[in-house]
Amino acid sequence: MLDQQITFLTETDKLKSVERKTSPIGLKRKENSAEHSWQVILAAMILAGHSKEPIILLRVIQMLAIHDIVEIDTGDVFHYAKQDVSDLEAQEQLAANRIYGLLPAHQAQELELLRQEFEARETPESKFAHSVDRLMAFIMNANNEGGTWREFNLTREQVLDKNSHVAEGAPTLYSYIESITAQAVEQRFLK
Amino acid sequence: MLDQQITFLTETDKLKSVERKTSPIGLKRKENSAEHSWQVILAAMILAGHSKEPIILLRVIQMLAIHDIVEIDTGDVFHYAKQDVSDLEAQEQLAANRIYGLLPAHQAQELELLRQEFEARETPESKFAHSVDRLMAFIMNANNEGGTWREFNLTREQVLDKNSHVAEGAPTLYSYIESITAQAVEQRFLK
Repeated sequence: MLDQQITFLTETDKLKSVERKTSPIGLKRKENSAEHSWQVILAAMILAGHSKEPIILLRVIQMLAIHDIVEIDTGDVFHYAKQDVSDLEAQEQLAANRIYGLLPAHQAQELELLRQEFEARETPESKFAHSVDRLMAFIMNANNEGGTWREFNLTREQVLDKNSHVAEGAPTLYSYIESITAQAVEQRFLK
Repeated sequence: MLDQQITFLTETDKLKSVERKTSPIGLKRKENSAEHSWQVILAAMILAGHSKEPIILLRVIQMLAIHDIVEIDTGDVFHYAKQDVSDLEAQEQLAANRIYGLLPAHQAQELELLRQEFEARETPESKFAHSVDRLMAFIMNANNEGGTWREFNLTREQVLDKNSHVAEGAPTLYSYIESITAQAVEQRFLK
């Protein structure tokens, strides 16, 4: 059993090479999905009190720890470029099958349940996990002179529309996002 | 309160720039403490069944999520170079005071308790957290043709001596470390 677990942990080391569109604050290089995963776990710990509904924090963190692992096979897909969703979902399923499948069967199943719960965004835990995941992208962009907002020439309406679900998990975090984007328009970081 | 929390999350983004001695598997670059923190959290989730004593997994993960944050001020200190421990402890305390101090007081105190528990290595949770933290360094080196073992010309005795406490948290993981290091000697990755 340990051998399978070590094989999984060795394989998932590759998440350190999956590049996201966002940069760490003040750096030229892009951040990778492994360091991003740490950051959203920390954010969930610190911001748990902002969840709209009571949450089991462990479950939120477990979802966030694994939420990007499929990107080892699919690459990071930019939030604003998610068009052909059914194709992407099929690719992510294949990736999950391959990578989680390295684990003992009962653990592979646990991770798949966590992933499906995260993607479905129906439970309080998955809603809150999405809220902190999105929030950190805003904090990065606001501190990087607009970052991907400027790079992709986005409007405030596009950004708020694409992230309206943050309010479902954490209304105060969504209010904060609204105020960041309003400031960003004034700073000309966002149209 | 949210403002203080965001300030903390923005400041701790700097953990993505703290370089460790170890490299991700197969890469030339060094890994940073943020991506390492994600990896040990994932390892704790996957390997929890190997803990010697029953553990509250959430507490293990919380310790691992914050265990390296002081390195933003102190830098990463190589495990085999920890000589003047009292001086290092004083520096880490100053760093913790400054960085945790950005948070609302009750959260700063929570993080300081987590840090002290981790460093004291007395509770089942902190012992297990140390075990997975050390294990991942072994897995990296074994997959990087010796990595820091070769770079610092270490012997198997030095490595096992410095990591004997892993057995306190997770005997099966320590046995695995013993077998990895035995193999590494045969492969001439370790003296």
